[in-house]
Amino acid sequence: MAGPTPPRAAQPLNSDAMLSASSRHAKSSAIRDLLVHAKRPGVISLAGGLPAADRFPTERLASKAASIVSDPRVLQYGLTEGEIDLREWVAAHHSRLGDPSYTADDVQIVSGSQQGLDLIARVLLDPGDVVVVSDPEYLGAIGAFRQRQAELVTLPVDADGVDVSVLEDGLRGGLRPKCVYLIPEFHNPTGTTMSVERLTRLARLSDEYGFLVIEDNPYGQLRFEGHPVPSLASLTTNVVQCRTISKTIAPGLRVAWMVGPPWLLDAVRIAKQSADLHTSTVTQRMALSIMGDEDWYAAHIASLVPHYRARRDALSDALSQMLPEARFNRPSGGMFLWVELGDGPDTTELLSSALDEGVAFVPGAAFAVSEVADRAMRLSYSTATPEILAEGVSRLSNAIEKLVR
Amino acid sequence: MAGPTPPRAAQPLNSDAMLSASSRHAKSSAIRDLLVHAKRPGVISLAGGLPAADRFPTERLASKAASIVSDPRVLQYGLTEGEIDLREWVAAHHSRLGDPSYTADDVQIVSGSQQGLDLIARVLLDPGDVVVVSDPEYLGAIGAFRQRQAELVTLPVDADGVDVSVLEDGLRGGLRPKCVYLIPEFHNPTGTTMSVERLTRLARLSDEYGFLVIEDNPYGQLRFEGHPVPSLASLTTNVVQCRTISKTIAPGLRVAWMVGPPWLLDAVRIAKQSADLHTSTVTQRMALSIMGDEDWYAAHIASLVPHYRARRDALSDALSQMLPEARFNRPSGGMFLWVELGDGPDTTELLSSALDEGVAFVPGAAFAVSEVADRAMRLSYSTATPEILAEGVSRLSNAIEKLVR
Repeated sequence: MAGPTPPRAAQPLNSDAMLSASSRHAKSSAIRDLLVHAKRPGVISLAGGLPAADRFPTERLASKAASIVSDPRVLQYGLTEGEIDLREWVAAHHSRLGDPSYTADDVQIVSGSQQGLDLIARVLLDPGDVVVVSDPEYLGAIGAFRQRQAELVTLPVDADGVDVSVLEDGLRGGLRPKCVYLIPEFHNPTGTTMSVERLTRLARLSDEYGFLVIEDNPYGQLRFEGHPVPSLASLTTNVVQCRTISKTIAPGLRVAWMVGPPWLLDAVRIAKQSADLHTSTVTQRMALSIMGDEDWYAAHIASLVPHYRARRDALSDALSQMLPEARFNRPSGGMFLWVELGDGPDTTELLSSALDEGVAFVPGAAFAVSEVADRAMRLSYSTATPEILAEGVSRLSNAIEKLVR
Repeated sequence: MAGPTPPRAAQPLNSDAMLSASSRHAKSSAIRDLLVHAKRPGVISLAGGLPAADRFPTERLASKAASIVSDPRVLQYGLTEGEIDLREWVAAHHSRLGDPSYTADDVQIVSGSQQGLDLIARVLLDPGDVVVVSDPEYLGAIGAFRQRQAELVTLPVDADGVDVSVLEDGLRGGLRPKCVYLIPEFHNPTGTTMSVERLTRLARLSDEYGFLVIEDNPYGQLRFEGHPVPSLASLTTNVVQCRTISKTIAPGLRVAWMVGPPWLLDAVRIAKQSADLHTSTVTQRMALSIMGDEDWYAAHIASLVPHYRARRDALSDALSQMLPEARFNRPSGGMFLWVELGDGPDTTELLSSALDEGVAFVPGAAFAVSEVADRAMRLSYSTATPEILAEGVSRLSNAIEKLVR
């Protein structure tokens, strides 16, 4: 009999974990390493995707918190689908948004929208299934789809959002996606909103070809001007819609939801039971305790809009003045502005110089799916004051000047 | 061009979701349907696995909650690995438990132990990988392993916990598991605790054969008598240990953790980022705000122990008196007691009659992995008073009598 051998330093992980780890290498890894420096004192960060912490409803939450955790039922195990009162609020909320009539049964509470995307991918996708996304795209969604070894097919984005005609051509040519993922309003990272014409066309295509639309709408309530576009859910039944309180109330609570068809939600519920049993009842109750007061909630959203709008204006104006060669579209809501530098420097190289000047952003390459986006960058205006945003652009302009000199 | 077709009622889910749905059929589905009636008014439930809600530290949490959510940093996005202060507390806590010296870097905070198991399965298991479990076994773990299409190999359980000699024979015969899952103390559902001899032998085997041990210990702090057994983590480095506050503080917070080797935790961190970004900072802070006071925490645990012990005694005594034909071992901690009825009735059939008598339990079949366990049942003593536990056993005895008459 052999004696005990020394403990092994590492065991083999499985193929998914290997894939996740390897997809983190190369350029994206270089960007992550650089962005660590975005947190250095004195650096103005236009990189983060964080909501403005000084707008969190701390006082109101504080006034409710003690009574919520005084109820032992709130501290006990809860339902996998989520608290019934919160699901009823969500159903009514979607009615107010102009969506079809939902009931609490159509709602699944999740621990943040990222979990929603992960659970949908878990129950829907087999390796090799085709998922249509835009390019550039929100990284968290790409990660969830790649984890299921989906094949990603990309659509270009212009001022009216993703180009649905490219999808239509693909479908006519035999493309059969399992689902199409989109952030129709104030897309992360490009800030674009899909036109009503494109949304309607996409809904018709989903009916015709039978693919599911994953409608991810974290920013829709932060609209600065114009009318809300109709939700995909109001145009087709082949849709699951993900919404979150992370951008309107606070991300630290980790409360979001999806509304969708029973065939999908039943499977998601089973997957969630295995994933984490249920979302914290405490944080669900906290969210409901403040959102459930409709007058307060409406006033709160109404106070967020001018806050972010003033910052969007400050960043847009500074870019127009100090970086006239940059192309960008002024987002009508949300938190992000996508800047293309044309034949300017590679933005991953630029980030290094920009950090020396004291400003950070996320290079476009970080959001690239199949295209390169090496001359683009995402700027966030959500956390800095208008004055600091202008100073950030000034530093960015200096960094570009030094690099191309 | 074809016009829009009517919306489809359902789309194909993927193979994992199909498998999860199908594994829910047959007997386990019948049991679930019956257990819905356990919530009927007047039914004494010995079925649930819930901790006693009247022992939740509601007052203390209430005294901390307002100040926690008053801090905007707590409401912002947090770290995937979890709050540093909580991870430091966990590392120190494991030192006090007699584990090896850990640092915060060795700790991953998760949204309940179920998420810990799910993430470990996600990064470790490829379809067909062998996972060793006991039989009967905790259902949540089985679900996480089955979701990865693992091949489950089972070990029998006796009064000293899982029979490690059966594992040793298997290994000598060529069995090569990727991991061995166990609840070494106060196993759910059997209530058994592994002997030191078996733990030591298992640790030696993991070193010799290079498999990972998943040491799930949700109940260890609820020890009624005797000395704690050494953790596997104190005997081998090939181990990841999962612990939770769900049984000692409150499950509604959804806070748990794992400590393990860097090769595993690095992969788990990436998977968690895709799964839900991070665990709620609010609930992490709430947990730490009360557990961080060591004196209070020690006194709290010391008050839980006699509470559950009195209920273990009441249920054991009632069984000895009113069901002398039943075999069970008196658990020295935790929440569950496993009863075997020998040549008594099938316990799924019995459940139906027991509900008519006004008492519920979980039939052994619900925890069966490869063996049948049709004459066994799990009784929980965690939520009822000693008097009600005795009345529950009396009703159970009536139900058996009526069924075998």
